[in-house]
Amino acid sequence: METPRVYGYINDICVIGHGSIGKGTLPLIKRHFKFDKITIIDPHPVELPEVSETVEFIQVGLTRDNFKEILDGIFVGKVGFCVNLSVGTSSSEIMQYCQAKGVFYIDTVKEEWEGYYSNEDVELWKRSNYGLREALLRDVRKHNRKTTAISCCGANPGMVSWFVKQALINLAKDIGFPLPEEPKTRNEWGKLMKDLGVKGIHIAERDTQRSNEIRDPKEFWNTWSVDGFISEGYYQPSELGWGTHEKWVPKEAVFHREGCQAAIYMTKPGMNVTVKTWCPTYGPQMGFLVTHDEAISISDYFTVKENDEVVYRPTCHYAYHPCAEAVASALEAIGSGEVPGEEKWKILEKEVVSGMDELGVLLFGHAKNAYWYGSQLDIKSTRERAPNQNATALQVTSAIIAGMTWALENP
Amino acid sequence: METPRVYGYINDICVIGHGSIGKGTLPLIKRHFKFDKITIIDPHPVELPEVSETVEFIQVGLTRDNFKEILDGIFVGKVGFCVNLSVGTSSSEIMQYCQAKGVFYIDTVKEEWEGYYSNEDVELWKRSNYGLREALLRDVRKHNRKTTAISCCGANPGMVSWFVKQALINLAKDIGFPLPEEPKTRNEWGKLMKDLGVKGIHIAERDTQRSNEIRDPKEFWNTWSVDGFISEGYYQPSELGWGTHEKWVPKEAVFHREGCQAAIYMTKPGMNVTVKTWCPTYGPQMGFLVTHDEAISISDYFTVKENDEVVYRPTCHYAYHPCAEAVASALEAIGSGEVPGEEKWKILEKEVVSGMDELGVLLFGHAKNAYWYGSQLDIKSTRERAPNQNATALQVTSAIIAGMTWALENP
Repeated sequence: METPRVYGYINDICVIGHGSIGKGTLPLIKRHFKFDKITIIDPHPVELPEVSETVEFIQVGLTRDNFKEILDGIFVGKVGFCVNLSVGTSSSEIMQYCQAKGVFYIDTVKEEWEGYYSNEDVELWKRSNYGLREALLRDVRKHNRKTTAISCCGANPGMVSWFVKQALINLAKDIGFPLPEEPKTRNEWGKLMKDLGVKGIHIAERDTQRSNEIRDPKEFWNTWSVDGFISEGYYQPSELGWGTHEKWVPKEAVFHREGCQAAIYMTKPGMNVTVKTWCPTYGPQMGFLVTHDEAISISDYFTVKENDEVVYRPTCHYAYHPCAEAVASALEAIGSGEVPGEEKWKILEKEVVSGMDELGVLLFGHAKNAYWYGSQLDIKSTRERAPNQNATALQVTSAIIAGMTWALENP
Repeated sequence: METPRVYGYINDICVIGHGSIGKGTLPLIKRHFKFDKITIIDPHPVELPEVSETVEFIQVGLTRDNFKEILDGIFVGKVGFCVNLSVGTSSSEIMQYCQAKGVFYIDTVKEEWEGYYSNEDVELWKRSNYGLREALLRDVRKHNRKTTAISCCGANPGMVSWFVKQALINLAKDIGFPLPEEPKTRNEWGKLMKDLGVKGIHIAERDTQRSNEIRDPKEFWNTWSVDGFISEGYYQPSELGWGTHEKWVPKEAVFHREGCQAAIYMTKPGMNVTVKTWCPTYGPQMGFLVTHDEAISISDYFTVKENDEVVYRPTCHYAYHPCAEAVASALEAIGSGEVPGEEKWKILEKEVVSGMDELGVLLFGHAKNAYWYGSQLDIKSTRERAPNQNATALQVTSAIIAGMTWALENP
């Protein structure tokens, strides 16, 4: 392996959350950044062999009441970076705090304080990613602060948005569409997608990672945060970016009254909505239409307006075939009408003996019909690059490193 | 274990098919009947350590052209019994042959000659179990022959119909419904169900049998015939007995023009229709609405008519949660729009390391709301009773022995 590149120098790095993604990100941060100190925060006791003079662990759960005080004690140097890889914390509030303090911020998903998603007293649209995204953009932008903060920068949401741009470039070439230079503005990207005739995008993922252990019924297994998957697939509504070409509307669809109008949601959980999609290795397949931020942000980003009227918007949604154990777990949750508690959760990490996470964007509707562009990462090559991670995690953690690097280069 | 009971003496037993059920039935037949000779027929080469002076194996596939000649060579003694445990043979034609010859007949499912179910030139309703049942009853009854022939006598269809009767008796007792003696006629049974307020019956099955081997995507694993499950769950339409209380009709429903009118079908395969149901061990769960003969025959059997008008009929359908690997296999087939070929099939027999097949009838709509009555057979007790079978198979094979015994006692 070649000598790893170092992308920048940060005085104080705070990693919130030491779950599967936190564990996987830590060695990459250590490998790719210079730093004075890394502080890891997690409410659970964790095994952390990395603890040293420069790596500290604080066992505490961040809450609305304590987070500022705790983070104040961490960000003491010139350059600080808050890497939020937790669930049950408010991305919006921590991001606003960081920007006020001049500290870089990145997360892989918009989160809310513990219990928000499963709180049935909160109206469904407020638990939708659309509602949360609108609220976050509104709250963060009102301060007009400048320190770079990156929201939803994992594999998906995150890396797949970069895939869409590259896929458009490739598609233009394949179709023979004249493209003297890459688009530079949001409007130019939207026009390119429109001109290429793209009607929609699936974020098409197939996870074939397997262990040879035996899951008991009512256990919930996954290759990444079970908590996170339950939030988005069970408690949040199924949700998708809604294109201008759509003539039909799903039966349970609800349109939003406020905001950018790029998405709709359905009054059922994503684990209970299946769609047909396609990934390279196994071809046509079913996927769960689980809500994901990229479905909304991609539809919004590539919207083309003329005189303030929307003239083009692609449909965009996640079409997720999780690992077989997660498929079975999800169907059991939907069937029983309840999700198992934390003591029944398991993330397949070292247990994975074979399989791949195949994650890409499937652009359809254009002259070439459909084009999939993405990452095919199997467990073997994952472990060569990053021991103790599975393929799903590495696709996320590598995107975090990319996002952190971009933030440092674009402060 | 107590000395096994012997239920009768048969000169010539012919077992057609040596798949998972055939293999499991053979030792039970040997244990529970006296016989002169057992002949086993299968198109595949099979390991058959039982071959002896009294057990013969013929490797041949039965076809419309050869079956009479082959069976003529087998049924030479006074009492013959044809035990049809094959797929791809015509139950109707073999049954008619047996009745003409005075040979007992039993099968566990109505089958057609090879390729019928997957032949898209055959109209869907003719591939429905309703259509096949109507045709079989018409063809067999026209001869007015008397030798007992039993159709669809496995676990389900089969044993579960007996469960329904016992469940009604138990329910009457629980509810305090006066029942001086058990119903004797079909009409009395229908009236009892009606009077108890039963609206419908799920054949509610949960299979939790697991191996610790790893299935490759595109393989199809099951705990019983993969071929059989693909026929009923993928090639045949989803189908259910349709009760008189139903006010709503599923979107894809088709009603039949001819016959008893006890059932409807949907223009989609059962592997693509999920229903909510309930089994004791894991409570509420999802099940596939796969077509099954008992759904039609139970709805038909318990129909109450007055002056030739149907005044009561229960809804009845299968609600099948197969083993986790079969769930994943089924969803992959539905997602990809294709079923894997025979070389990708696997039946979990010796491979099963844990789990149970829980199969019962869930009667709902009455004063006690819902009542499940059935069999809970785990792999451990299965192997104590019948080595080399899994729990799913033993529930079928034991019902075959019961059916054979009944036939001998009711010639």
